[in-house]
Amino acid sequence: MKIAALAGGVGGAKLAHGLAQLLPPEDLTVIVNTGDDFEHLGLYICPDLDTVCYTLAGLANPETGWGRADETWNAISNIERLGGPAWFRLGDNDLATHIERARRLKEGQMLSQITRDFCKAWNIGHTILPMSDSPVRTIVNTDEGELAFQEYFVRRRCEPRVTGFRFDGVEFAEPAPGVKEAIQSADAVMICPSNPWVSVDPILKIVGAIEKKVVAVSPIIAGRTVKGPAAKMYAELGVEPSALAVANHYRSILRGFVLDNADLKYEPQVKELNIMTLTTDTLMNDVEDRARLARAALDFAGSL
Amino acid sequence: MKIAALAGGVGGAKLAHGLAQLLPPEDLTVIVNTGDDFEHLGLYICPDLDTVCYTLAGLANPETGWGRADETWNAISNIERLGGPAWFRLGDNDLATHIERARRLKEGQMLSQITRDFCKAWNIGHTILPMSDSPVRTIVNTDEGELAFQEYFVRRRCEPRVTGFRFDGVEFAEPAPGVKEAIQSADAVMICPSNPWVSVDPILKIVGAIEKKVVAVSPIIAGRTVKGPAAKMYAELGVEPSALAVANHYRSILRGFVLDNADLKYEPQVKELNIMTLTTDTLMNDVEDRARLARAALDFAGSL
Repeated sequence: MKIAALAGGVGGAKLAHGLAQLLPPEDLTVIVNTGDDFEHLGLYICPDLDTVCYTLAGLANPETGWGRADETWNAISNIERLGGPAWFRLGDNDLATHIERARRLKEGQMLSQITRDFCKAWNIGHTILPMSDSPVRTIVNTDEGELAFQEYFVRRRCEPRVTGFRFDGVEFAEPAPGVKEAIQSADAVMICPSNPWVSVDPILKIVGAIEKKVVAVSPIIAGRTVKGPAAKMYAELGVEPSALAVANHYRSILRGFVLDNADLKYEPQVKELNIMTLTTDTLMNDVEDRARLARAALDFAGSL
Repeated sequence: MKIAALAGGVGGAKLAHGLAQLLPPEDLTVIVNTGDDFEHLGLYICPDLDTVCYTLAGLANPETGWGRADETWNAISNIERLGGPAWFRLGDNDLATHIERARRLKEGQMLSQITRDFCKAWNIGHTILPMSDSPVRTIVNTDEGELAFQEYFVRRRCEPRVTGFRFDGVEFAEPAPGVKEAIQSADAVMICPSNPWVSVDPILKIVGAIEKKVVAVSPIIAGRTVKGPAAKMYAELGVEPSALAVANHYRSILRGFVLDNADLKYEPQVKELNIMTLTTDTLMNDVEDRARLARAALDFAGSL
């Protein structure tokens, strides 16, 4: 079974890793959100892309959900001592990625090309693609005005109240080379358990209409997210955060929806949306959980 | 006694540190070569300025003569793994300096202002000034063509045969704020034991005529340099490398010259140039040596 997976950071990376454990390299392409990329300290930082790459390479920090394992923090500590901006915590190993990427982008290379070379250096066999080579920037509209995504997410710790989103540049951005092909040749498109508003929506806007069966895994379990502000965003936008809200979010494109056992009660309502359901344990605490959930989601997609 | 010291990297930093041990902050300004500054990996690197600052701050690596003590190398190792340029070894602590400096320069701040703030953060009381806020770039003419200084010095390990030097931008560069004032208010200008060709000459070109007594400390001892290619450069340019060659180099501006006991034989020839001499132990193996040589050089300068 050939899969094109759409992913943001932490949760998306975990399921992508589960899929990568089961599928041969030629059967999995992970298309990653770049809407929260940003330039900072002269570096070019792609948080979701890096989290997916680090996770598939076995380099990710299992504690934080971002950054590298066995990390040191000497550069950022010294930047702080010099009075520089240190609110975005960049580890020394991680820094290399952003420095080298910025250097190659400045030379005129494409993000997708750089990502391909980085994946090779990290011994990642499966294909990881940025959604686009053109910059798209997620702007969060809040009660305190517009905030660039990382300002909202990291610097302000998601505290401002969300009123909406804007994806700067999305109307001019083409899918990166390989994105359309990966979707066209896939048996199913799998939306990983990432934030629907700020991780998956930008990808969906970039790729346009999807003429494949689409299966999504809910990032919301029992009204809460494992990590990240998706539930808070739903609530602030006037929607009760739940697996049902996620199914509703994607209703126009969804053939199948995977929700947690804790959300069994929503099954009938999701089915009323003409979406097939799989109810299972969706929490991914360890590497085995990732493979187990990926296996269940693949079998479910295959059955549709 | 008020001193304006002219310094390049290692040897210059050591004597500057000796002077800083003896003189109160208001009586010492160190004017540092920026001809070997370069942009690399999107960062802005000032090797001589950093060596002087790290040395006076007690942060320098005593083994290498460049970089920081207790350094880690995670960023550059990862850049290397990604196939990026890793020939210029940048430690994780050291990286912070170049990242934050590049960030502030891009904001339009001046190198001298940034250096002042960095010195404050590093608790350096004495004044350290870049020779200029304008970029000056030392180009080494060699039998293999022109090489940017760090290409020659680090990447090519000084192997190409030198035929001359050029200082790109020197004709447009003004001394940094404070440089002229430091020289005007000094009782003596002290040329530290740095490379005459590539560390001191650029500073001399920037500051122009010096109407103060000038004392130099020879960087060449018994025909050799403690570190760096000065002796090799003299030989390739057809001059026998010696303390005498250094005195000759500076003859038009020198009132006094400090040479090593090992070079006692050159004393009469230096005196024939109408330059007063002090022959002493000029090797600086430890912090006490720095202060001892600084003491001797200060007393000598005071006696002229």
